[in-house]
Amino acid sequence: MALVKLQDDSSAKPEAREVFDDIRKTRNSDYVNNIWRALAVHPPMLKRFWSYMKEVMVKESRLDALTKEYIYLAVSITNNCEYCIHSHVAAARKKGMDDEMLAELVEIVALANAGNRLTMGLQVEVDERFKPRFDEA
Amino acid sequence: MALVKLQDDSSAKPEAREVFDDIRKTRNSDYVNNIWRALAVHPPMLKRFWSYMKEVMVKESRLDALTKEYIYLAVSITNNCEYCIHSHVAAARKKGMDDEMLAELVEIVALANAGNRLTMGLQVEVDERFKPRFDEA
Amino acid sequence: MALVKLQDDSSAKPEAREVFDDIRKTRNSDYVNNIWRALAVHPPMLKRFWSYMKEVMVKESRLDALTKEYIYLAVSITNNCEYCIHSHVAAARKKGMDDEMLAELVEIVALANAGNRLTMGLQVEVDERFKPRFDEA
Amino acid sequence: MALVKLQDDSSAKPEAREVFDDIRKTRNSDYVNNIWRALAVHPPMLKRFWSYMKEVMVKESRLDALTKEYIYLAVSITNNCEYCIHSHVAAARKKGMDDEMLAELVEIVALANAGNRLTMGLQVEVDERFKPRFDEA
Amino acid sequence: MALVKLQDDSSAKPEAREVFDDIRKTRNSDYVNNIWRALAVHPPMLKRFWSYMKEVMVKESRLDALTKEYIYLAVSITNNCEYCIHSHVAAARKKGMDDEMLAELVEIVALANAGNRLTMGLQVEVDERFKPRFDEA
Amino acid sequence: MALVKLQDDSSAKPEAREVFDDIRKTRNSDYVNNIWRALAVHPPMLKRFWSYMKEVMVKESRLDALTKEYIYLAVSITNNCEYCIHSHVAAARKKGMDDEMLAELVEIVALANAGNRLTMGLQVEVDERFKPRFDEA
Repeated sequence: MALVKLQDDSSAKPEAREVFDDIRKTRNSDYVNNIWRALAVHPPMLKRFWSYMKEVMVKESRLDALTKEYIYLAVSITNNCEYCIHSHVAAARKKGMDDEMLAELVEIVALANAGNRLTMGLQVEVDERFKPRFDEA
Repeated sequence: MALVKLQDDSSAKPEAREVFDDIRKTRNSDYVNNIWRALAVHPPMLKRFWSYMKEVMVKESRLDALTKEYIYLAVSITNNCEYCIHSHVAAARKKGMDDEMLAELVEIVALANAGNRLTMGLQVEVDERFKPRFDEA
Repeated sequence: MALVKLQDDSSAKPEAREVFDDIRKTRNSDYVNNIWRALAVHPPMLKRFWSYMKEVMVKESRLDALTKEYIYLAVSITNNCEYCIHSHVAAARKKGMDDEMLAELVEIVALANAGNRLTMGLQVEVDERFKPRFDEA
Repeated sequence: MALVKLQDDSSAKPEAREVFDDIRKTRNSDYVNNIWRALAVHPPMLKRFWSYMKEVMVKESRLDALTKEYIYLAVSITNNCEYCIHSHVAAARKKGMDDEMLAELVEIVALANAGNRLTMGLQVEVDERFKPRFDEA
Repeated sequence: MALVKLQDDSSAKPEAREVFDDIRKTRNSDYVNNIWRALAVHPPMLKRFWSYMKEVMVKESRLDALTKEYIYLAVSITNNCEYCIHSHVAAARKKGMDDEMLAELVEIVALANAGNRLTMGLQVEVDERFKPRFDEA
Repeated sequence: MALVKLQDDSSAKPEAREVFDDIRKTRNSDYVNNIWRALAVHPPMLKRFWSYMKEVMVKESRLDALTKEYIYLAVSITNNCEYCIHSHVAAARKKGMDDEMLAELVEIVALANAGNRLTMGLQVEVDERFKPRFDEA
């Protein structure tokens, strides 16, 4: 059970209700999921994170929507955030991810976590050619 | 400096040299980067990780090559693996990633690391609707 | 369920019971919570960690008791230690933390986890002026 | 060396220069440190993180400015973000932290990281009395 | 509940069933535990990880079988992987680990997590004498 | 460079010098390495961690000295603590670890970090048979 009381439309403060409404409109769905209802305990926190999420994940940009979900999931799996894995797997499935694509994602995350430790365990130094070069003209 | 002596073609054991050759062939490049030269201290370890990497990252599959690099990078940034970030940013740039796409990737990684802690900090429970359902017919 | 049998006053070895008594006395409460009852499976481990905790968290020092709880919580949230978050939120609430203060703490933890990854993702180097200097004669 | 070119007033885009100006004004200092100059490679990212940081860390709120730095540092130490540790230790020192207070902070971070693993290693379950209760009237 | 349907002998594809059989044979047991049944959703992933695990953990090598389990557990505790802790504690108990040995393992993991943060928090530099030297002619 | 001034016998406070002497005596060596000289900035912190380290790592117990180093290293590699990896690899080498044993250790750490993420990514539930049972008679 969450450490704060989940808010709903009747208990939330007006600034939080406004965010709930924007979530519903943005997602074209009546449902507001638990994380937003928990953040609503402190409306400025809710507003800030929703606005950050909306700008980075929802607004059109160079990376497509499903790729963004993969990146979000790669982090959430590495950190073992059960809630985040569940909610973003659901989001990714809506955007077209099937079991095989999920399996591929999970396997790359596993591989990278292994590769990271091989490199760190042997304390391998960056090759000169991988270092960025910004020679000014 | 790495904790083991980096191997080159003259110092590496035959099984390791074979892997070096396969790396060169697969990448169509003469260069073998430091991580492989370090792993070569124990050829079975080199062979296993190269084969894992090649199957998961190089072989054609459902996720495209650049998306795979994003996922690998999302993990490496979360874990702060300096070597891995440098080598996979180089790989992603070769596959078309420019500064703006790198910036987007990094920002999603940051957002997800924040979102993970908001959820964990408030110990929010998974919504019923995010739980998988496998009702057998 | 814990991986070892939780000890109580009747099952614990004498050295563990002594620690239980000191916990009760220090906290002015009859209750000994689960972590200590689990550590009691190996009394020297229980004794060492209780003594460490008591010296660092209970003894008066430069940082006040609530600030210490915030720091402990910031770590526990970053690591997603469910038990630790619950027990130290309870401890912090006893010392005066309300929902709004908890929200602020959680949001700083989220922000810092994001900021850490922005910095690591772009591999930003430390500014000269942030480096310590101890060259006075 | 950072993976993107650090921007300065002459190379930064107008939206980034505006943020640089706000950083200078807010901090009452001419200096803009490296992280902001790196984020400036993608002005919307710079703007979003600066605005998040300013609202959470600079704006007056329930937690005082030094406590906020401790929390930010506790996360940065746990994640081993070298840049973040250096820049926020500098910030905390400006707000009054001396060597002894730094030592106390670091020791609590160490203790909490130990306590987290004792609890996770033995898989201790949350005591009933630590679970939140939101009995509606 | 897992995010993919756990496979059994009747639902698994032939390539997955072959791996199940090899797991049974290798372990001399009829039981195939949940992780393998989940990985079976994508047989190449199952095959790759089982083969990696078998080569590294089962095949005779310089480190003995129980030491390998300790190392696997030290990682799993640090990452708080509940499933991995449970399954590898069970495996280690079969190989002779009793409560006291488990307690010692957990305490070293806690100590190391603390020691890591003391070092990172103070940003201590590596002593010259700990740096490897490979300068023989 | 460390964030605090490294102490030596002439600058350290008497309580810290006593610990330096015990380190020298315990290790039968004149050398006191950097971490202890940094912790000496706050003698109670130095004393506590040295005493913890000595009791857990030096005192004879059920796990042998080299196994303890492997466990300490597995944690340090997972957390990417450069200092800790260097100092404990040096310690393990003194206790008999050669390149091949180091390679095996590193590979198990990599494998476990991968296995942890496969399990977390698919959110696999613990098998009933792995749950502990403490049926009292």
